[in-house]
Amino acid sequence: MVVEYDGTGFAGWARQPGLRTVQGTLEDALAMLRGGRPVDLTVAGRTDRGVHAWGQVASYAGAPVGLKNLNAVLPDDVAVLACEAAPDGFDARRDATSRTYCYRICTRRVAPVFEHRRALHWPYRCDPATLRRCAEILMGTHDFTAFTPTETDHVHFRRTVVRAEWHARGDILEFWISADAFLRHMNRVLVGTMLEVAENRRSLADFAQLLEGAPRRAAGVTAPPHGLHLAAVAYGGPLLSRDG
Amino acid sequence: MVVEYDGTGFAGWARQPGLRTVQGTLEDALAMLRGGRPVDLTVAGRTDRGVHAWGQVASYAGAPVGLKNLNAVLPDDVAVLACEAAPDGFDARRDATSRTYCYRICTRRVAPVFEHRRALHWPYRCDPATLRRCAEILMGTHDFTAFTPTETDHVHFRRTVVRAEWHARGDILEFWISADAFLRHMNRVLVGTMLEVAENRRSLADFAQLLEGAPRRAAGVTAPPHGLHLAAVAYGGPLLSRDG
Repeated sequence: MVVEYDGTGFAGWARQPGLRTVQGTLEDALAMLRGGRPVDLTVAGRTDRGVHAWGQVASYAGAPVGLKNLNAVLPDDVAVLACEAAPDGFDARRDATSRTYCYRICTRRVAPVFEHRRALHWPYRCDPATLRRCAEILMGTHDFTAFTPTETDHVHFRRTVVRAEWHARGDILEFWISADAFLRHMNRVLVGTMLEVAENRRSLADFAQLLEGAPRRAAGVTAPPHGLHLAAVAYGGPLLSRDG
Repeated sequence: MVVEYDGTGFAGWARQPGLRTVQGTLEDALAMLRGGRPVDLTVAGRTDRGVHAWGQVASYAGAPVGLKNLNAVLPDDVAVLACEAAPDGFDARRDATSRTYCYRICTRRVAPVFEHRRALHWPYRCDPATLRRCAEILMGTHDFTAFTPTETDHVHFRRTVVRAEWHARGDILEFWISADAFLRHMNRVLVGTMLEVAENRRSLADFAQLLEGAPRRAAGVTAPPHGLHLAAVAYGGPLLSRDG
């Protein structure tokens, strides 16, 4: 399944008792359409509270259900864009070869009405050329220990970035990044730290050094979740969904 | 003042007792910043319930207030982009020389999450080339009696369209129209009627005839309000705000 959701009204992807989550909402809808049989979803990228998705991918063991029936029982803030049979043994998380995220920032002076909860409002000094230099430094394999919380379940901290770009469209800045996998909060700490560089509060050399296994306290703040969008997931071939 | 708002949570522009309106929200905020002195706003384009604005223009007799203070007391779904002194006697409605509207349509099969309440979901046959032919026919001065409710306050029904274009971006279709002024519901009936032509349920010749003073019943349905955006207002010079 390819899934789109507005993260504003969800306590993140992962099912939690008593909370409205994307996983819980989808599993309940699927179970209803499958005569009450419970569904256990596996997901390509667990998203935190407030994070959005344009092209999340999830899988379950069982036959696909009709797209029209499924969307008819889903609320307005989540939509399934495709529900198709996958090869035997397919696992949305394990088989993914890369994930693409987009972090959106609105740089105009007045807080945006139509980008509210979909972009970080950042009416401060923010040089796009400097951000692009940061993106160039990010390309390749690095140790991202500095960009994930200290108390983490991760064992390995090396990740390979295959795409990192900053794009400007009017007063919207977008950071696009693709990697084999991401650490918890990695994109949000990357954005928070790059914004410090773009404000001239941190040097490019310092940013480069952070990618060599520096401790978490050496990096910048964690940018808020509502600018972040899981854009697409790839499975050894072309990206499955929307890409910039 | 140049004003942006998401029309979803408002009962339209015009102040009405007991209802949440854009005019009421703005006048209350301005009065608060002016020590309780009431404010009477004049507006370039009164918008109906559910219609959005990127560049509405409103004026009042009195000194401008600080933009930061004003936005600080406004809710998240309305923002003032500029609040500046105008020439003596300026009137946002009377002095406007043209208004520009944009009607947005999402043509993909699955109802869109991020365009919910900002674009009409229209997963039907819809030929962009035919829509463009309709737009060409719209250019110039016509009698728009067929495109406004029969019980109307309007006296004259001739309006001059100086721009009419359909643009496609991915699965979003946008209809941009500029005219000296618009009749009530005119854009929504135009869009509803053009969609009938694009579905092959009405001919281009029939559409052209409607512009010669046909009765309201001869035209198509009124498209829903949530696709419509007041994009910009012009005052004899360049447009004051966002334009496509």
